[in-house]
Amino acid sequence: MEFSAKQIAEYINGIIIGDENAKVHTFAKIEEGIPGALSFLSNPKYTHYIYDTKSSIVLVNNDFCPEHEINTTLIKVENAYESLAKLMTLYEQSVPKKKGTSPLASIAGNAKIGKDVYIGPFASIEEGAEIGDNVYIHPHATIGSNVKIGSNTILYPNVTIYHDCRIGSNCILHAGAVVGADGFGFAPSPEGYEKIPQIGIVIIEDNVEVGANTCIDRATMGATVIHKGVKLDNLIQVAHNVEIGSHTVMASQGGVAGSAKIGEWCMFGGQVGIAGHIKIGDHVTVGAQSGIPGNTKSGETLMGYPAIDPKQFARSAAIYKKLPEMYTELGRLQKEMEELKKRLNK
Amino acid sequence: MEFSAKQIAEYINGIIIGDENAKVHTFAKIEEGIPGALSFLSNPKYTHYIYDTKSSIVLVNNDFCPEHEINTTLIKVENAYESLAKLMTLYEQSVPKKKGTSPLASIAGNAKIGKDVYIGPFASIEEGAEIGDNVYIHPHATIGSNVKIGSNTILYPNVTIYHDCRIGSNCILHAGAVVGADGFGFAPSPEGYEKIPQIGIVIIEDNVEVGANTCIDRATMGATVIHKGVKLDNLIQVAHNVEIGSHTVMASQGGVAGSAKIGEWCMFGGQVGIAGHIKIGDHVTVGAQSGIPGNTKSGETLMGYPAIDPKQFARSAAIYKKLPEMYTELGRLQKEMEELKKRLNK
Amino acid sequence: MEFSAKQIAEYINGIIIGDENAKVHTFAKIEEGIPGALSFLSNPKYTHYIYDTKSSIVLVNNDFCPEHEINTTLIKVENAYESLAKLMTLYEQSVPKKKGTSPLASIAGNAKIGKDVYIGPFASIEEGAEIGDNVYIHPHATIGSNVKIGSNTILYPNVTIYHDCRIGSNCILHAGAVVGADGFGFAPSPEGYEKIPQIGIVIIEDNVEVGANTCIDRATMGATVIHKGVKLDNLIQVAHNVEIGSHTVMASQGGVAGSAKIGEWCMFGGQVGIAGHIKIGDHVTVGAQSGIPGNTKSGETLMGYPAIDPKQFARSAAIYKKLPEMYTELGRLQKEMEELKKRLNK
Repeated sequence: MEFSAKQIAEYINGIIIGDENAKVHTFAKIEEGIPGALSFLSNPKYTHYIYDTKSSIVLVNNDFCPEHEINTTLIKVENAYESLAKLMTLYEQSVPKKKGTSPLASIAGNAKIGKDVYIGPFASIEEGAEIGDNVYIHPHATIGSNVKIGSNTILYPNVTIYHDCRIGSNCILHAGAVVGADGFGFAPSPEGYEKIPQIGIVIIEDNVEVGANTCIDRATMGATVIHKGVKLDNLIQVAHNVEIGSHTVMASQGGVAGSAKIGEWCMFGGQVGIAGHIKIGDHVTVGAQSGIPGNTKSGETLMGYPAIDPKQFARSAAIYKKLPEMYTELGRLQKEMEELKKRLNK
Repeated sequence: MEFSAKQIAEYINGIIIGDENAKVHTFAKIEEGIPGALSFLSNPKYTHYIYDTKSSIVLVNNDFCPEHEINTTLIKVENAYESLAKLMTLYEQSVPKKKGTSPLASIAGNAKIGKDVYIGPFASIEEGAEIGDNVYIHPHATIGSNVKIGSNTILYPNVTIYHDCRIGSNCILHAGAVVGADGFGFAPSPEGYEKIPQIGIVIIEDNVEVGANTCIDRATMGATVIHKGVKLDNLIQVAHNVEIGSHTVMASQGGVAGSAKIGEWCMFGGQVGIAGHIKIGDHVTVGAQSGIPGNTKSGETLMGYPAIDPKQFARSAAIYKKLPEMYTELGRLQKEMEELKKRLNK
Repeated sequence: MEFSAKQIAEYINGIIIGDENAKVHTFAKIEEGIPGALSFLSNPKYTHYIYDTKSSIVLVNNDFCPEHEINTTLIKVENAYESLAKLMTLYEQSVPKKKGTSPLASIAGNAKIGKDVYIGPFASIEEGAEIGDNVYIHPHATIGSNVKIGSNTILYPNVTIYHDCRIGSNCILHAGAVVGADGFGFAPSPEGYEKIPQIGIVIIEDNVEVGANTCIDRATMGATVIHKGVKLDNLIQVAHNVEIGSHTVMASQGGVAGSAKIGEWCMFGGQVGIAGHIKIGDHVTVGAQSGIPGNTKSGETLMGYPAIDPKQFARSAAIYKKLPEMYTELGRLQKEMEELKKRLNK
């Protein structure tokens, strides 16, 4: 498909500087521009690329003023990055989607399947499952018995949803994600650990994205709950009975131990660890690889292992390198002090 | 299914305080109690919930003495948590299990399948595999050639077991677990890394639980061994030629590098890293996110990166924040010392 | 299959000390030797095993001089470990490989399949995919639409390759690896995070090995690129628009955040974290669990969180334990200094 600068400007409410008939059929980063591509400029660090880019159209912010001649067609908008996202979404939606059920899928007789659902080859839908309208189930997804899935949700290949769990509408679960495996609960006995059955479920609300190979364990009793709008990156561990508040985002390889309660609109960097049975407030921001051992108030920003104020962490980390010389110097001062005292006591 | 307080008290050897005809059909946490649910009280932090819980029956420890009136029926037992586990296990066992082989499974002609096995749709069992009695194979599990699996073991969806590996009896492998992928072994050459073939296997003994998306690599030669009763949480990495002793438990996202030998009854927190070619004794306890760089004696408790005594770690971590002021103060003392010395030398 | 010492010595250009008719049919570690097995001795720590090993043949380095009598047959070579790798590769290649397409696979009508390809049961190959010669596709691998795969590449069970991604020749992707899932990109809005479509791809060049359950995300625009000869261990996260230079190796559970550029011939220990939008030079070596927050010059060696020179890290870590006593001592010196000054000012 091809779009003209004029069509695009209308859609995103922009002003054309250049050729309104310039045409694009793909996207490219401004530094990798090719004829027929649309690029954008938002970060001032990349401004110098605009004078040489081969892209046919570039989205820029309203306040952009070129310092040299520009060969490409510009479209000025309030927020170039947001407009780009809008156009990419349009582009993605224009890709034709598959419909219907593959004859190679396995669907239990009493499963309820909504309208306009796609079910790929080797998808497995077990007894009593309920699938909403427009759900897109890639090959090899496994949907356990009595699972409920809301409308417009996408399950990528090899997603596994264990029995009785509930997934909201407009969710995306990437390949290999596992929802509802047993929580890690055992009672020690002299002969070994006895398994505590995990008879709870996982509830994922609407508009949640779950990354590839991320695991969300079912509750011992009750539910592990991922509230609406949460975005989890790849390879994350969410243990049993955890609750994650709306619109919280967590980068890849983070881990949340059992029964931790996390508030809304938090942001967690990669490889963060959160202890079990603690409470984290709303709007908490945590730097990569940090460890959160205890309760955390709303609005806090933390970094380190264990996590402290990020500025404090940066300052202490800078001094950490000097610990050996500090240690030596401290010893030297002790000696000098003893000598001085001796001298004065003579 | 519904059970009365009387039936339950008999099964767990408890004493009823209240209505012996009170009936339950499900479980609930005491703070989320509903009529018809059984709850338990073990942690004194939760005691206040017992006076308002809607649950019909609550298990309590023998030494529990209510301070106010209680509306629910109590069953007193020696250990409320253990009795709960016993009841939940009974409940889980009462859920009807599937039997038989799905016509959509792929089973090599010479594979040996035990009695009362369930094999779900799209399970793939390759040449020479041997499956014990009562094994439960969920959809999409892949069992490589010549793999041996003991009786009563459960493989959840998308589990992959590479060729020649051996799994014991009464094991549980959760969705996406990978057993027997190649160890990470390469020999450098000027043109790049040459692969060292990994011709060993993985041996998992009886009563082992392996979490979702956990990876246990095959040995270069010989075997990577997970001894009986080991419990591994989700997203754990066990490298080639590692040996993990009986009844050791490891929380999610831990990593064990190649050829490390870990003793019995150890406990590892989440995201722990264990260096290669080291030896860890029995009954070693390691806090979350710690790094273990070297040999560790039996009975040690460790925390930190690199790991040290946990109390020492806690004290040092508390001082870490004060490093900048310590550094400044040390510099000030140095100057004062110089001045004093000058004054005395005059 | 069975080989004699004579045949082996010819293949690896070695000198036999002992019985040239000694025969082996398998490999074993020297400390676990059995009759009929070939072992090797490279690490001097293991030399004492050679006097008692039950293995029939042992490869040793040319400079090995026995101090006692040896019962096994030795083959002396320049590099025993490299010769072993050569023999193990020969052994692996001698294992018969499957050919042909399982009738239980799902292959889109317009997919192009090369010569001598194996496609296992329940493999799913979507529209427009192109598979090179001698590719080996295990059961349950999912190859998205328009994916291109070079010759001799192996995909293990449950590998998922999302649409449009490109995999080179002679690559190995282990079970559960996910190539091309959406990068983690969202634009905040007052109602929640809006998804930024990820319309780029992943390019994996030749001779790359990707570990089990490792995730490599597709680019927002353009490509996430894994250059030739890269070796990634299990459970690694490679975010969108990352570039990893040729022959770089990364141990398990490492994470690379978005748009980081990593040079050639780097080595990363396990659980390392690399920040987004940074540049790491060539031949950089990073210790396990380290965090790399910023640009790194070629040839650097780093360790710690945040990472510093490894010797500095070791020294500082040793002093870290003594922080509480340093703090106390510093306070004591301050007091003494005040007292001294008072005394002198009298």
